Amino acid sequence: MSSAQVRQVYTTAGFGARLERGKRLAIVVVDFTYGFTDPVYPTASDMTSQVEATRTLLDMARSRNLPVIFTTIAYEKGHVKTLAWLRKATGMASLLLGTRLVEIDGRLGRREDEVLVVKHGASAFFGTDLASHLAALHVDTVVITGATTSGCVRASAVDAVQSGFDVLVPRECVADRASVPHDANLFDIDQKYGDVIGLDDALDYLAGVAIRQA
Amino acid sequence: MSSAQVRQVYTTAGFGARLERGKRLAIVVVDFTYGFTDPVYPTASDMTSQVEATRTLLDMARSRNLPVIFTTIAYEKGHVKTLAWLRKATGMASLLLGTRLVEIDGRLGRREDEVLVVKHGASAFFGTDLASHLAALHVDTVVITGATTSGCVRASAVDAVQSGFDVLVPRECVADRASVPHDANLFDIDQKYGDVIGLDDALDYLAGVAIRQA
Amino acid sequence: MSSAQVRQVYTTAGFGARLERGKRLAIVVVDFTYGFTDPVYPTASDMTSQVEATRTLLDMARSRNLPVIFTTIAYEKGHVKTLAWLRKATGMASLLLGTRLVEIDGRLGRREDEVLVVKHGASAFFGTDLASHLAALHVDTVVITGATTSGCVRASAVDAVQSGFDVLVPRECVADRASVPHDANLFDIDQKYGDVIGLDDALDYLAGVAIRQA
Amino acid sequence: MSSAQVRQVYTTAGFGARLERGKRLAIVVVDFTYGFTDPVYPTASDMTSQVEATRTLLDMARSRNLPVIFTTIAYEKGHVKTLAWLRKATGMASLLLGTRLVEIDGRLGRREDEVLVVKHGASAFFGTDLASHLAALHVDTVVITGATTSGCVRASAVDAVQSGFDVLVPRECVADRASVPHDANLFDIDQKYGDVIGLDDALDYLAGVAIRQA
Repeated sequence: MSSAQVRQVYTTAGFGARLERGKRLAIVVVDFTYGFTDPVYPTASDMTSQVEATRTLLDMARSRNLPVIFTTIAYEKGHVKTLAWLRKATGMASLLLGTRLVEIDGRLGRREDEVLVVKHGASAFFGTDLASHLAALHVDTVVITGATTSGCVRASAVDAVQSGFDVLVPRECVADRASVPHDANLFDIDQKYGDVIGLDDALDYLAGVAIRQA
Repeated sequence: MSSAQVRQVYTTAGFGARLERGKRLAIVVVDFTYGFTDPVYPTASDMTSQVEATRTLLDMARSRNLPVIFTTIAYEKGHVKTLAWLRKATGMASLLLGTRLVEIDGRLGRREDEVLVVKHGASAFFGTDLASHLAALHVDTVVITGATTSGCVRASAVDAVQSGFDVLVPRECVADRASVPHDANLFDIDQKYGDVIGLDDALDYLAGVAIRQA
Repeated sequence: MSSAQVRQVYTTAGFGARLERGKRLAIVVVDFTYGFTDPVYPTASDMTSQVEATRTLLDMARSRNLPVIFTTIAYEKGHVKTLAWLRKATGMASLLLGTRLVEIDGRLGRREDEVLVVKHGASAFFGTDLASHLAALHVDTVVITGATTSGCVRASAVDAVQSGFDVLVPRECVADRASVPHDANLFDIDQKYGDVIGLDDALDYLAGVAIRQA
Repeated sequence: MSSAQVRQVYTTAGFGARLERGKRLAIVVVDFTYGFTDPVYPTASDMTSQVEATRTLLDMARSRNLPVIFTTIAYEKGHVKTLAWLRKATGMASLLLGTRLVEIDGRLGRREDEVLVVKHGASAFFGTDLASHLAALHVDTVVITGATTSGCVRASAVDAVQSGFDVLVPRECVADRASVPHDANLFDIDQKYGDVIGLDDALDYLAGVAIRQA
């Protein structure tokens, strides 16, 4: 099947609808920690442009007083011994609490009141209270950025829409180790879980929502 | 990057480990309902060979008295009006409770004591008690079959390993509407969430585990 | 300790705050099925007045177009064989899919678009997508009625507030088999999880919220 | 109704069954942090005897190499601003990350490989991956100790059995601020969610299970 034929099959099956834009949103920055963004670590790759694009998005969000939430994968010794995922994704076991690998990349300028969700799996929602936090914020839309597109971003997008929220993924703000899985997962997300959009579009959208009351 | 280079990047990052085989397993058959397997419906495609391969696997599992669990996506009117996923995956809204689309394909010979998990999202685990059911069965491994590879199978594999279970996916037993997303998602699963194996290997494995006490 | 002393201890520890009333709410009716409300069944008791009070509340909610959600405990044979809860609460195993015990009491006038959440444990939220449904409705408050106060209502109140929603429990609308656990659990709920209020107060509140757009 | 009559009503409804003892267990110590155990804090009360009884239990568990898991409630500033529970249980908002209140009481001798689950609600399971951790350990039984009986212990017992595990609560190892809610919740737990047992019985049980392989 050609790429055009695949899109036709998906359209017939009822995928790929475009979302109306919601009125209340939060930004979730997935795993932009040094363990993913600093190529000194084997688990990382160069994500400079995506980190910078995310910073641009965050600056706009902060100017509108919109909630920003970060996630990090961080383990204790007891997790490494037990968790099933670490038997398959063995490299993740290096992401230990207390190390630099689990710290949010300083270029994102995380503020003290921006919640850090500590997770142990791929999804920002699994085994965390992120869905509760978003429900308590009464948001209707989650904008997801971070790494990696084919891993934790994808898993988080699936869980965000399952949790009741519309999902937007600004293309320039999500990063991966390799382009083939990156593109394949953006296709899946855009067809089934949320709209993959441009950074300019995302910035316009944020600029247009009401400034949130403290 | 060539395919070989991508694999090298993943190996360096610590993905793609092979699992030791567990001792207690369950089979989870994801969404092999007529809404996916009978091409008369726009949401479906021809999955004959994968349904038949799954039946072969189930016959072996039943002969060993291993637990078999089915899932179906099935909505009420109230869900269709509200759930976020159905704004993006609009075709899924045709999967209504009480219609033939949500019934398990008869070729799989579902037995009365094989639990049917009703779900409303992509993952067999999200918003269901499947993880509790598997924990109560004391299984260490989940073998996942069904449809679609790039949608509900992928989402279920991610959640299975996050839920504490090793994941095996027999290649011949998972189906999709198009081969590119099918292959891309098998790659992701095999690198990060579970071992993608051949049907023969799966059958050998099942034949070798202890027959489960009732 | 006297009852007054206990309240003082709780106040000192920072419990028992009164909630500000939210702007968007849903009603969740927990397990008002014949298996609980028709004394012909051993699992049931006479809950006539609480069912009628709930009907009064529902009529008001329906007149404002507010979302109403019902829950039922309903098992398949496969659940009964496996689920841990049914080893402890053995009576619940009689609540089988397809029997009258799991049907919503007709006196509540459930409408076709009022979602029925099928659950297998005490909480309306555990192993269900109720939290996602409520998040997708963008509610800030959940009004909980049903049975039993010391079992499924209590468990649902705890999970509702953990899921991000303020909780209100109209006293006349929750029922139990015995008054001592009923009263003890209303005390716990009122101190820690949500405001226990009178039916008149609840009706005034519902009358005052904006009629919801379809 | 007399206490005997209440028990009769519960027996008729099918509650209060005694559990067969499982073969693989974990100990979960709920919220025995200084914020609950050191009376210098308004949220705490004197729990010396229950902390000491839990230490006795832990020493036995450690001698059998059984898994021990601790929980703590610990918030960031961003949680305090948003989470619904902290509008009702306002005192809990003092349990801030980085303070002594959220540290495990030193008398319990927590070891480095004993996992600490950070939670934001009453239940040790809600918004955490405790259920996944227990499933990955392949346990069939959870022994729950800690504080408070009427709050986080009760909520955790409900979620443990919903998650697929048998529940045991050693009476001498759970503590509360006041005896009436303590007793009422032990009654509910013992009737519906798990066996409330004596410490001697718990110690005998632990002594009898196989020493777990590392």
